[in-house]
Amino acid sequence: MTEAASPTAPRSGVGEHQGGRQGGRRRKREARSSSTPVLPWREVKNRLAPIEVLSEDQVETIHQASLKVLANVGIKVLGADARGFYRKVGADIDEGEMIVRFAPELVEELLAKAPSNFTIEARNPERSLEMGGNNIHFSSVNGPSFVNDLEKGRRAGNFEEFCDFIRLTQVLDILHMAGGAPFEPLDLPVPSRHLDRAMASLTLSDKVFPVSLLGARRPKDVMEMVAISRGLKLEDMMDRPMVYGGVNTNSPRQIDGAMGEGLIAMAEMGQPVVVTPFTLLGAMAPATIAGALTLQNAEALAGIALTQAVRPGTPVVYGGFTSNVDMKSGAPAFGTPEYTKACHATGQLTRRHGVPYRSSGTNASNCVDAQAAYESEMSLWGAVMGHANIINHAGGWLEGGLSASFEKLIVDAEMLQMMACYLDPIAVDSDALALEAIGEVPPGGHFFGAAHTLARYETAFYEPLVSDWRNFETWSDDGAKTATERAHGIWKEMLANYEEPAMEPAIKEELIAFVAHRKEDIADNPEGL
Amino acid sequence: MTEAASPTAPRSGVGEHQGGRQGGRRRKREARSSSTPVLPWREVKNRLAPIEVLSEDQVETIHQASLKVLANVGIKVLGADARGFYRKVGADIDEGEMIVRFAPELVEELLAKAPSNFTIEARNPERSLEMGGNNIHFSSVNGPSFVNDLEKGRRAGNFEEFCDFIRLTQVLDILHMAGGAPFEPLDLPVPSRHLDRAMASLTLSDKVFPVSLLGARRPKDVMEMVAISRGLKLEDMMDRPMVYGGVNTNSPRQIDGAMGEGLIAMAEMGQPVVVTPFTLLGAMAPATIAGALTLQNAEALAGIALTQAVRPGTPVVYGGFTSNVDMKSGAPAFGTPEYTKACHATGQLTRRHGVPYRSSGTNASNCVDAQAAYESEMSLWGAVMGHANIINHAGGWLEGGLSASFEKLIVDAEMLQMMACYLDPIAVDSDALALEAIGEVPPGGHFFGAAHTLARYETAFYEPLVSDWRNFETWSDDGAKTATERAHGIWKEMLANYEEPAMEPAIKEELIAFVAHRKEDIADNPEGL
Repeated sequence: MTEAASPTAPRSGVGEHQGGRQGGRRRKREARSSSTPVLPWREVKNRLAPIEVLSEDQVETIHQASLKVLANVGIKVLGADARGFYRKVGADIDEGEMIVRFAPELVEELLAKAPSNFTIEARNPERSLEMGGNNIHFSSVNGPSFVNDLEKGRRAGNFEEFCDFIRLTQVLDILHMAGGAPFEPLDLPVPSRHLDRAMASLTLSDKVFPVSLLGARRPKDVMEMVAISRGLKLEDMMDRPMVYGGVNTNSPRQIDGAMGEGLIAMAEMGQPVVVTPFTLLGAMAPATIAGALTLQNAEALAGIALTQAVRPGTPVVYGGFTSNVDMKSGAPAFGTPEYTKACHATGQLTRRHGVPYRSSGTNASNCVDAQAAYESEMSLWGAVMGHANIINHAGGWLEGGLSASFEKLIVDAEMLQMMACYLDPIAVDSDALALEAIGEVPPGGHFFGAAHTLARYETAFYEPLVSDWRNFETWSDDGAKTATERAHGIWKEMLANYEEPAMEPAIKEELIAFVAHRKEDIADNPEGL
Repeated sequence: MTEAASPTAPRSGVGEHQGGRQGGRRRKREARSSSTPVLPWREVKNRLAPIEVLSEDQVETIHQASLKVLANVGIKVLGADARGFYRKVGADIDEGEMIVRFAPELVEELLAKAPSNFTIEARNPERSLEMGGNNIHFSSVNGPSFVNDLEKGRRAGNFEEFCDFIRLTQVLDILHMAGGAPFEPLDLPVPSRHLDRAMASLTLSDKVFPVSLLGARRPKDVMEMVAISRGLKLEDMMDRPMVYGGVNTNSPRQIDGAMGEGLIAMAEMGQPVVVTPFTLLGAMAPATIAGALTLQNAEALAGIALTQAVRPGTPVVYGGFTSNVDMKSGAPAFGTPEYTKACHATGQLTRRHGVPYRSSGTNASNCVDAQAAYESEMSLWGAVMGHANIINHAGGWLEGGLSASFEKLIVDAEMLQMMACYLDPIAVDSDALALEAIGEVPPGGHFFGAAHTLARYETAFYEPLVSDWRNFETWSDDGAKTATERAHGIWKEMLANYEEPAMEPAIKEELIAFVAHRKEDIADNPEGL
């Protein structure tokens, strides 16, 4: 393991640009909490009725159209293994064209085998997640190549900053899922990068994290590391989901080789797969929402079918990622009106199917400005009121997913915390109705000093992370900082106070040894992924 | 009329800081539209089921608690006229304490007289508004003392900029209601300021606008001006709502003299009144949402009761403005989780009552940053999914309502336009399902060139006003402007291309004469308001 690739080794130079984190890391977490109030870890459930933008008939019409796509024109499946699994369950395979066609009954039959809910066990049992129903899990951003912050601007991601980002996703309790690949650590060699990423996710955080499903070898390596981290053997985890991984179909109508292999590997290990078509209206999908949903649904069902063909009962999540492009430039857009509607409609499709639903927190802004916030809110309301169970990219996504932003992570955490508190039910009992207090305070008076108020002084309302409610003069005198500028200071401070979650030294040593061993293997056989 | 107070006279110096608006104003409106695409005027309806954060029982529990407040501790009513109207319908009056108490049956009886819907006729008949049901009307900000833009910063409002702001609210077709008092023109004398404001609202815009209800004389003056603008007499408008006015109760439990007089004057003229308690949790209301809603509901019902006591059938709107304070500093907060929940709950109360609902677009940020945007989105989703019929302050409100911001107006217009398009139903028919196109485009191909896409090229998706979807490099090369900086350029350009809506010269002359005449009267008798 190299110095750069060791997330847990003491690193020289870190203190230079991060204000003495080495010392700060030893401080108690409570000290951090007092200056930057983070909403404590909580389960988030949406007890409200979902927003339904389609009638039941319309949902069924779209689903039936998808079945026609699957039956008549089919899906191109590049992997021979995947086609083999499809053949085994009775799909119609055109080997020459690599096209798989499905009878509607076959799709329904395989779909019925997918569980409607399951639990993913985190390294920290208190961070385990129940999937399905009205549970909402917020996940930090995954996948960008660039990283961005106010100080250094936009640049290629590297592993040191990658680890810092994961540290922050660990500290922000509103993020139920963290780590994975907030951005690509481009300074690390591709063939073994997944090992370093998993090492960081496993040691710097104790939350559920996603694994890359690019081929079969990566998820197998990571699952072995997860097994080590839990003191288990790989075979013990067959019916115990402990991570998850996502595949995107190559819309329109294509599942590529590496993605198919990754999906199969996960299903064979009994681990959850999220199947997400990336159906941009006007680009990879028709320019109508109904058309894009038809295509999305066909592709998602094809992917779900593959998980059940490999191993019936494999936990699988239906991912929706339908947005539109700018029709003038072809640029992708996110958090648009079409996007939000598609989120709600996708929720309806997934409830029809009885499978958990993954959506996203997105925006297409190039900086953490008002646009980034309103597009993110539009997608957040789309996901939350569509009853998504996983809201991926909900912390730190910027620039249409090309950048992970440190400041956006903090601003997003604020939006997520607000949403979580919004979803808390309103208490309506005699204490909350406060008739006595209303009678006590004279007309035109105030409730500041009422006993009813004083009893709730500290905890009555949501306490913001970034929002500044001071008056204009006080805010101006304090530098007239925007929310984004304040977010910069907040993540710096959080990082300075970060504490690594405990891990048994023997386990950590075993992980380090496994990674070193695998890196040697990969160096000998870099094509073996 | 002074030069400063003449919104329609040619004004020297304007062109200096606004890039030759005098010339620009003569340009065709189409020219403006081509560079800054404004969503054309449209009715906005919310066909989706409202979000219900309370059970039916809980709604009734809160309502019954309000009735207890009204029956037991009552409302202090400072105006003798108002108490007289309450007495006439059978309320219990304590003249010494100026407390009015209501039997629950009396409240229900008066509430039942309020219409569930009505139409407000605009000067331009195409801008008339139907209130009630699932109609949503967005209104620009009303009431701040300060105005803010990126160039000149935050400063006291003046009439020249006041007129510019109204011009912009006229151009932005997503604003169904405009004018009124986007901010106070503090350079104009208080006793006659309402005349100048109404003149600006009537001549620079042809939309429905609000009138100030501070006393009886102001709404009467403005109604006379409205009558002149329509070529009608005041008495012709008795059953034809043509403007509206808002009163705030002095929470807790108080209706002051001037507000009562304004409300009575409007009711006597058959014009709609919006009654809005300003119930900040922990300040003017209990620190619990249920308690604040109980107080809000009691005060709103007392105000509604007064309108019906004056003139049964008076159109009246139930206003909700329940938010919370920062419990540490007492500073008001807006767009908070508590605020959003209260918006949804208030919608449930108003539907129980069968009266239209007014909510707001709000935020507590001191600048047009991410906070301004996410707090505004939280309040917008609160209002829209609470099925508010009037969403006041939805364009330009900043700093907890202390400032009107030119840039925020543009950013808000974007958010409103997006919301309006989000509310458009999804078409699900064979054309929209696009099965043929899905079959045509090969796996892994794209839909850019598909006939189905090309047929929808121009109009398929929402076209943004402020959002920049260009890639990072292009955006950087073009100055790396934030949404707020882009908004600055947009309003400047809109103003340069503004065209005043047509008005018959004879009518305008009559309005000018009326204002001049009333100003003389007021100069002679400044206390006569």
